[in-house]
Amino acid sequence: METRRKIAIIVAGGSGTRMGSAIPKQFLDLAGKPVLWHTIHSFVRAYSDMEIVLVLPEAHFDYVTPWLGEFNTVAPVTLVKGGETRFHSVKNGLQQVDGPAVVFVHDGVRPLVSTSLIQACYETALAEGSAIPVVDMKDSIRETDGRGNRAVDREKYKIIQTPQTFLSEWLLPAFALPYDPLFTDEATVVERQGHSIQLVPGEDSNIKITRPLDLTIAGALLKDIQ
Amino acid sequence: METRRKIAIIVAGGSGTRMGSAIPKQFLDLAGKPVLWHTIHSFVRAYSDMEIVLVLPEAHFDYVTPWLGEFNTVAPVTLVKGGETRFHSVKNGLQQVDGPAVVFVHDGVRPLVSTSLIQACYETALAEGSAIPVVDMKDSIRETDGRGNRAVDREKYKIIQTPQTFLSEWLLPAFALPYDPLFTDEATVVERQGHSIQLVPGEDSNIKITRPLDLTIAGALLKDIQ
Repeated sequence: METRRKIAIIVAGGSGTRMGSAIPKQFLDLAGKPVLWHTIHSFVRAYSDMEIVLVLPEAHFDYVTPWLGEFNTVAPVTLVKGGETRFHSVKNGLQQVDGPAVVFVHDGVRPLVSTSLIQACYETALAEGSAIPVVDMKDSIRETDGRGNRAVDREKYKIIQTPQTFLSEWLLPAFALPYDPLFTDEATVVERQGHSIQLVPGEDSNIKITRPLDLTIAGALLKDIQ
Repeated sequence: METRRKIAIIVAGGSGTRMGSAIPKQFLDLAGKPVLWHTIHSFVRAYSDMEIVLVLPEAHFDYVTPWLGEFNTVAPVTLVKGGETRFHSVKNGLQQVDGPAVVFVHDGVRPLVSTSLIQACYETALAEGSAIPVVDMKDSIRETDGRGNRAVDREKYKIIQTPQTFLSEWLLPAFALPYDPLFTDEATVVERQGHSIQLVPGEDSNIKITRPLDLTIAGALLKDIQ
C-alpha cells in the first residue's frame, strides 16, 4: 500500500478580537495548556511520521517559543510567518512542502480533532485526491437578503470542518493561482483548478474556538473525550 | 403601553433516539434537574404572569408528574398530549389559547434560553406580530445534491432558534391550515398565511440538546451562566 509524507499546516492567524480577550484565542488556556498546544498534539499523536508546519503572525511567535520545543523531540515542527489572509498564510506554509505528500490544512483553534478523523482524511485524500470533513446541520436555517428572509431545506447543506486534506500535487498548483477574495477555504482554491472535493464524515466535537463560550464547551468536551 | 397574556407552548415530543439513551433527552439530568425542568423554569422566571402549556407524548406524562406540581404555585401549567408531528403537537397546545396573547413556541430541549431573550421576543412580537431568534453561522457550509457539492456564502444564512413568538391572531389562523410536510417550524406555517417573519438576535448559549455531547456542553454553559 502506498504511504506518503504527512504534513499538517496548522494555521493560527486570528487576532482573537471576537473573544474580547487581549490574548489571541489560540493561546488561551484549555485544561492547563494553550489551545494551540492541543491542536499540534492531536496531529503528532495521529501518525508517528507527522510533520508540522505552524503558520502564525510574526507578532505571536513569542507565545509559542516557551513550549514549541517539546514537540521537536517527536515531530519536525517548522514555524512560518502568516500572510495577509488565510490564503496567503497557507501559501506561506506550502513553501515547506517539497515532493509528494498528503497535506492537512487545519485551523489552529480546532484542538479536539481526533486521531480517527485525521486518519480518515489521510486515507481518503490518498485515494481520492481530497478529503473535507463535514457534519450535518442540526439547526433550521433561513436565507436572508435585502428583501427579507425565507426558510431553506437544511438537509441540502453541510457544515465544513478541517483538516481540509489534499495530495500535494493538487494543492501546490492550486495555490499558485492569483488570490481571489472568493477563496474562503482550501477546498474553494482546489476547485478553481477543476478538481472535485470529496466529503468525509466529520465530528461534532471537532469545534472551532472563536467565542468565550466555545472555550467552556471545549473544556467540557476534552474531559468527556479523555 | 399594551401588555398581553403570555403563553409558552413548550414542545417536547422527541423520543430521544439520537441520544442513544432509553430516557428521552428532555428528561435527562442537567445539574440535578431534568432538562425540561430547566426549560420551564426559564419561562416562569422571565415574566411573573407567564402561563405554560407543556406538550408531551402521553407515554411521557409519568416523567413529569413527580416535579411538575412545583411550578403550579408560580404559574398555571397545563399538560397536553402531543401529536404525530411538531405541527400537530403545537396545534394541540394552541387549543389552550383563547383570546389575545403573545404565544411563545419553544423546544423543550433548549433549557438555557435567557430571560432577556424571552423578553426581547415578547416585545418584538407585540410590536411586529412575530419574533424569531437567529444567530450567525460560524462555520463554512457547502450545498450538496446528487451532482456534487459546492461552497456557498454563509453570510446569507442564519441559524434559527426558539422561542418562535407570535401574536395569537397570527398563530391561531395559521394552524387552522391543512398540514403540509413543508411546515418545518412555526415560522413557515405563519408565512403560508402571508405574514412576514421578524428576526431578532438569538443567543449562542441557547443550544438544542439532541446529542450526548450537547448535554456535556449544556452542563458547562449552565455553570458559566449562573
